[in-house]
Amino acid sequence: MGAKAMYVVVLAGGSGTRLWPRSRSETPKHLLNLLRTDVSMLQETVGRMLPVVAPEDVYVVTNARHVDAVREQLPEVPPENVLAEPIGRNSGPAVGYAAAHIHKRDPQGVMLVLPADHVILKKEDFRAVARTGARAAEHGHLVTLGITPTSPDIGYGYMETGEEIQTIDGYAVRAVVRFTEKPDLETATRYVESGRYVWNSGMFMWQASTILEEMRQYMPGLFDALSALEPVLGTPAEAAEIGRVWPELEDRSIDYGVLEQSHKVVTLPVDIGWSDVGDWAALAEFSPRDEDGNSLLGDAMAFGCRDSLVYSSGRLITAIGLEDMIVVDTGDAVLVCPKSRAQEVRKVVDRLKAEQRREQL
Amino acid sequence: MGAKAMYVVVLAGGSGTRLWPRSRSETPKHLLNLLRTDVSMLQETVGRMLPVVAPEDVYVVTNARHVDAVREQLPEVPPENVLAEPIGRNSGPAVGYAAAHIHKRDPQGVMLVLPADHVILKKEDFRAVARTGARAAEHGHLVTLGITPTSPDIGYGYMETGEEIQTIDGYAVRAVVRFTEKPDLETATRYVESGRYVWNSGMFMWQASTILEEMRQYMPGLFDALSALEPVLGTPAEAAEIGRVWPELEDRSIDYGVLEQSHKVVTLPVDIGWSDVGDWAALAEFSPRDEDGNSLLGDAMAFGCRDSLVYSSGRLITAIGLEDMIVVDTGDAVLVCPKSRAQEVRKVVDRLKAEQRREQL
Repeated sequence: MGAKAMYVVVLAGGSGTRLWPRSRSETPKHLLNLLRTDVSMLQETVGRMLPVVAPEDVYVVTNARHVDAVREQLPEVPPENVLAEPIGRNSGPAVGYAAAHIHKRDPQGVMLVLPADHVILKKEDFRAVARTGARAAEHGHLVTLGITPTSPDIGYGYMETGEEIQTIDGYAVRAVVRFTEKPDLETATRYVESGRYVWNSGMFMWQASTILEEMRQYMPGLFDALSALEPVLGTPAEAAEIGRVWPELEDRSIDYGVLEQSHKVVTLPVDIGWSDVGDWAALAEFSPRDEDGNSLLGDAMAFGCRDSLVYSSGRLITAIGLEDMIVVDTGDAVLVCPKSRAQEVRKVVDRLKAEQRREQL
Repeated sequence: MGAKAMYVVVLAGGSGTRLWPRSRSETPKHLLNLLRTDVSMLQETVGRMLPVVAPEDVYVVTNARHVDAVREQLPEVPPENVLAEPIGRNSGPAVGYAAAHIHKRDPQGVMLVLPADHVILKKEDFRAVARTGARAAEHGHLVTLGITPTSPDIGYGYMETGEEIQTIDGYAVRAVVRFTEKPDLETATRYVESGRYVWNSGMFMWQASTILEEMRQYMPGLFDALSALEPVLGTPAEAAEIGRVWPELEDRSIDYGVLEQSHKVVTLPVDIGWSDVGDWAALAEFSPRDEDGNSLLGDAMAFGCRDSLVYSSGRLITAIGLEDMIVVDTGDAVLVCPKSRAQEVRKVVDRLKAEQRREQL
């Protein structure tokens, strides 16, 4: 089997609710330089693949209102490769839209689907994994990149692995028996102890033809829409047609829509220093710390604090006697929260929505 | 003995360091409306005596740079009764300056010395106490108003009470055997358990002639300066003369300079709902609370918090899962601190001074 071309598909549709008040609907997580490096998470996501993938083989699917910002952040990616969703419809339609584009160009092409806002510390290892995953994808598998759990985290999706299907480049490719979204702590603990579960990283590899075939079976509404769209892809009529069909699509994740039902799903367990940096506690793990375990970012002063993240976007923040806490200040809002409750930031955003406080959303 | 006239002397010289970031050198604690009533602490201090003292018998001693603000806040007090200290020299010189003014006008007049930034909940009881204290002062005593301790607070000064000297209006006036400034916790606990100690409220009563006589003995440098000043008091030459003598005065509190040495000191134990509101934890005690014990002031949102103070001066503050915490936001600074460490706010201010961050001081 000859090596097929690899295309990177970056899903830049989320907002990163739990990283409020930094992430906002107008400036979602992936457009931010959250880790205080010199690049945004989106730029980091694309940049880590550019050593092995040409910029014209990179696609980004994002909300129409962020298309300009994405194109500005990724000047090397052809503007027409930034695909605009009129409104968010979850990852199923987003993956389908990119698959249709790639399929029209190269039906056997292998898609590497990447969320735009994850951290991968071992970049070289990740590129090696992608080569291996591409080979598995060429066998017709829907390949999920699985992360060996380091804790019974209840914020992740878990995949139960089954029999080993084949070995590629020394990696064991295993069947996936079951998906479980965000289990309770007891269940997650049992999963981790069993050694048979991996976290669903949201990173996938498959041929465009394979995923479209599975969509025909499991998401037929989406498949029909994509088929109708096919003739106009890459033409001036594309935007109008997308605007017409998109709102009718079901809001459904690729996991729920296809992966949890397909018999072609396998997992490639990987060790790449991954995190979805889903909340402030996760972000703290990736921030530089002083000898007391504190991450003081921006104009922050700590007195007798331990293992705390103090994140200033400009104004002075002073913290006394904090332990395992998060303090975040943006120009217009402050968040104070123990690390152990970082997931609950979601509630703040829900409340702001309920109160229609648009200026803080 | 005929009743002597009573003069209220408000000491408005402090800055309220431990209430940073609300209190600043330019807007000290007493000028602020910290308790979110419609008056500042200074206005509250004067206002609570106006039912029994005429505005022209009220004096305020304050730093020269706050004179205008004080006069603006107290339009009923004659402007010439607002006495300007060129620089802070602690309470000894401030009391002496007011005593000299009052003595020139009415040597037997009784001074009621009040810090400008304390809370007294039982106002009617306080006015009754002042009447009793005035009678004790007319006996030639230096009367300290003593507060029965409710906890072994290490932020206060303690006075050991001795024999009962006399009973006035049913109040036992006792000798003061010893002063102790801010004892350690063990000592404070012993004091409270003994039942013989009261807190030094910083509120005093004496005749102008009595305190000046004691200053002659125990603060002779100050007494000489005041004597030299006497001829120009109330004349256009006063300001220049004050500017000349003031910087030479020793920086010394009235407690240390006179009270700890004089044999005329007595205490009148009072129950008036008093607090010096010295730090944010004390302030929280006087703020309205919701059913979870939280005080949410301004644009503050709490999720699963208990017994916490969240104080916004404008921007949104969101707090998740806090217990016994303080969060304060002003336009240019944020403070996060457990209530138990509210005293340490002082360290923040010290650091800002060391770093010469004038805009936050």
